[in-house]
Amino acid sequence: MKKLTTPLLLFGAPHQTPDLRYVTGFDSMDPVVYLQCPRQGYLVVPVMEVCRAARKVKKGICVLSPADLIAQRTLRRNPLHWITALLREKRIRRVCVPSSFPLGLAVGLKRKGFFVRLAPMPVFPQRALKTSGELEKLQQVQCGAVRAMQQAVAQIGQATIRKDGILWLNGDILTAERIRQGIDKVLSEHDCVAEETIVAAGAQGADPHERGTGPLRAREPIVIDIFPRSRIHGYWGDLTRTVVRGRAPPEVRRMFQAVKQAQAVALREIRPAVRLSTVHRKVQRVLVNAGFVTTGRGTGSEGFIHNTGHGLGLAVHEYPILGEGQGRLRVGHVVTVEPGLYYRRHGGVRIEDVVVVTRHGAKPLISCPLWFELKG
Amino acid sequence: MKKLTTPLLLFGAPHQTPDLRYVTGFDSMDPVVYLQCPRQGYLVVPVMEVCRAARKVKKGICVLSPADLIAQRTLRRNPLHWITALLREKRIRRVCVPSSFPLGLAVGLKRKGFFVRLAPMPVFPQRALKTSGELEKLQQVQCGAVRAMQQAVAQIGQATIRKDGILWLNGDILTAERIRQGIDKVLSEHDCVAEETIVAAGAQGADPHERGTGPLRAREPIVIDIFPRSRIHGYWGDLTRTVVRGRAPPEVRRMFQAVKQAQAVALREIRPAVRLSTVHRKVQRVLVNAGFVTTGRGTGSEGFIHNTGHGLGLAVHEYPILGEGQGRLRVGHVVTVEPGLYYRRHGGVRIEDVVVVTRHGAKPLISCPLWFELKG
Repeated sequence: MKKLTTPLLLFGAPHQTPDLRYVTGFDSMDPVVYLQCPRQGYLVVPVMEVCRAARKVKKGICVLSPADLIAQRTLRRNPLHWITALLREKRIRRVCVPSSFPLGLAVGLKRKGFFVRLAPMPVFPQRALKTSGELEKLQQVQCGAVRAMQQAVAQIGQATIRKDGILWLNGDILTAERIRQGIDKVLSEHDCVAEETIVAAGAQGADPHERGTGPLRAREPIVIDIFPRSRIHGYWGDLTRTVVRGRAPPEVRRMFQAVKQAQAVALREIRPAVRLSTVHRKVQRVLVNAGFVTTGRGTGSEGFIHNTGHGLGLAVHEYPILGEGQGRLRVGHVVTVEPGLYYRRHGGVRIEDVVVVTRHGAKPLISCPLWFELKG
Repeated sequence: MKKLTTPLLLFGAPHQTPDLRYVTGFDSMDPVVYLQCPRQGYLVVPVMEVCRAARKVKKGICVLSPADLIAQRTLRRNPLHWITALLREKRIRRVCVPSSFPLGLAVGLKRKGFFVRLAPMPVFPQRALKTSGELEKLQQVQCGAVRAMQQAVAQIGQATIRKDGILWLNGDILTAERIRQGIDKVLSEHDCVAEETIVAAGAQGADPHERGTGPLRAREPIVIDIFPRSRIHGYWGDLTRTVVRGRAPPEVRRMFQAVKQAQAVALREIRPAVRLSTVHRKVQRVLVNAGFVTTGRGTGSEGFIHNTGHGLGLAVHEYPILGEGQGRLRVGHVVTVEPGLYYRRHGGVRIEDVVVVTRHGAKPLISCPLWFELKG
């Protein structure tokens, strides 16, 4: 059997399995089975999901329930039986599966006499190249993120500074939690949801993925990273700004200038055919030249301790990664550009925007002001 | 090597892999590696996550970064190398993995001379038996869900009914989207987030997982299903009510009475050692006896077309399932009890509460009024 004609078998909850959602157009938090044959796709979903799936799937996909495939009721609960019944009905003995396919199912299929082999990864390379329809969806979500950021920045800008430096708004302490609630509200109005939003002030911001808690203070950097997902179509947005209420300490200002310059260099560097690692190394160089060294490799690591960016689509982190790996940018790639600096003494500074790679270089999905010192 | 001493290897993003979050206490949207040896656990996370992981992991777990294990920078990007380096350092050749372990990694490990076998499932059976600390967390989230439901019900109750039956509140049409926004706001105040909330009115509600859109109308059932997750600890809540603004049509009222009775029967039936399938069958019987037949098995299916309930914890759907499968309830199980009826002509009716199984039977995690007809 030739490579191209081996059916592709996918398994997982589409909500958390971008390939499945991409190829079927169906969203579900529970696992489904998808079999892609050369001329037809088959999607097996639980009985209660059949109607919804039939309405939502892409053209040319046939929706089945376990009851359509399996006579014995007790066998219908196990997805292994869904798969074997489907393969037998379609007289298929060989399938290829993605690297993430569950070992347990693969072993079960082999025991029943099927041949399972790994498909070349990625299984849908075209998923990294966004269509104009996908760009529109990404733009919608990113627009929600920009509005939410505007609201957060406005709250911090309007706050008054108490004697001890703590921010105060409408008669109460301004906390990371309050900022997050304001962000949630705006995102909700855009039919988006952010499971995690980072509002990390001062030392908290020195850890790039610390979500942040408690009162916000003047004169220290506040990293705000909003990465919402559309409830309607499942595409993600991603936006980070670092702001200071009042004047920033000189070192934080130097960090901000360096990160800003690093992002500008990355944006200039992005164009079709450029190596992913080239973009990342240029960013590293800008930061080193500005005097910001990256040190340590464990709990003590400081400086620029992550990649320059990542692909964005139905997954919040996807190919291509602007880091040290191989590969080149192509027209249609959508990537975040998010250099950052992290020092326990000063906190974190990160600036992140999303761009699409066009023939002429990086084009922002949407523009968003670059705030820094909010003077009130 | 005896079964108990074979180290257990887990891989995945803890945010979406409940076993990983359960055993490590660490949350991350990016993949990590966890190796459980008899005396020590090892968690390998990306360099940028090391500090955060070291602060958050449970006692007795050693946090490592790929840089601690692998000299060559270019190899550090691939989790297969994280695993092989860790296993070599610990002089381990055999590991067991869960059924969900990625086939690609298993094949890679075998090629490098390691023995990989499937662990008996579930790998952490104790995860289904909630501790008092876990019950408290589940209660917190469920409390957020109850408050959000109160808010949704209040909006529908306060709405006025336009001549054409459409609900109207504060000078605007009351839509599923507005209800969802109100729910989001309350959940956000409880530091919870609901990726999907169902507000499905009329015919939309005939599909149990339809999220619902558009204007709400008087005299038709509105299914509101809120399943938030705590941003702080990752436990889930789950709550459903079905309400009607004004008088319900007689058939909808009959559906509601039957579902209410079915839930009461299930709650009485729930106690330690009772079969999961017994609870489910009693619910089926109540509904059939009330005259509600389940028909079809594909796009035409109507009636009681899902299970009676499911376990709730770090996953929104987990063991035990109150359905036709094997197994018995035990003290400490936390399950939803959610009978429902779905007919395209009338819409859906579902009532869902969460209970913990105690020695004395089902105990609600938290009480929530049972609204139905909202007279305004």
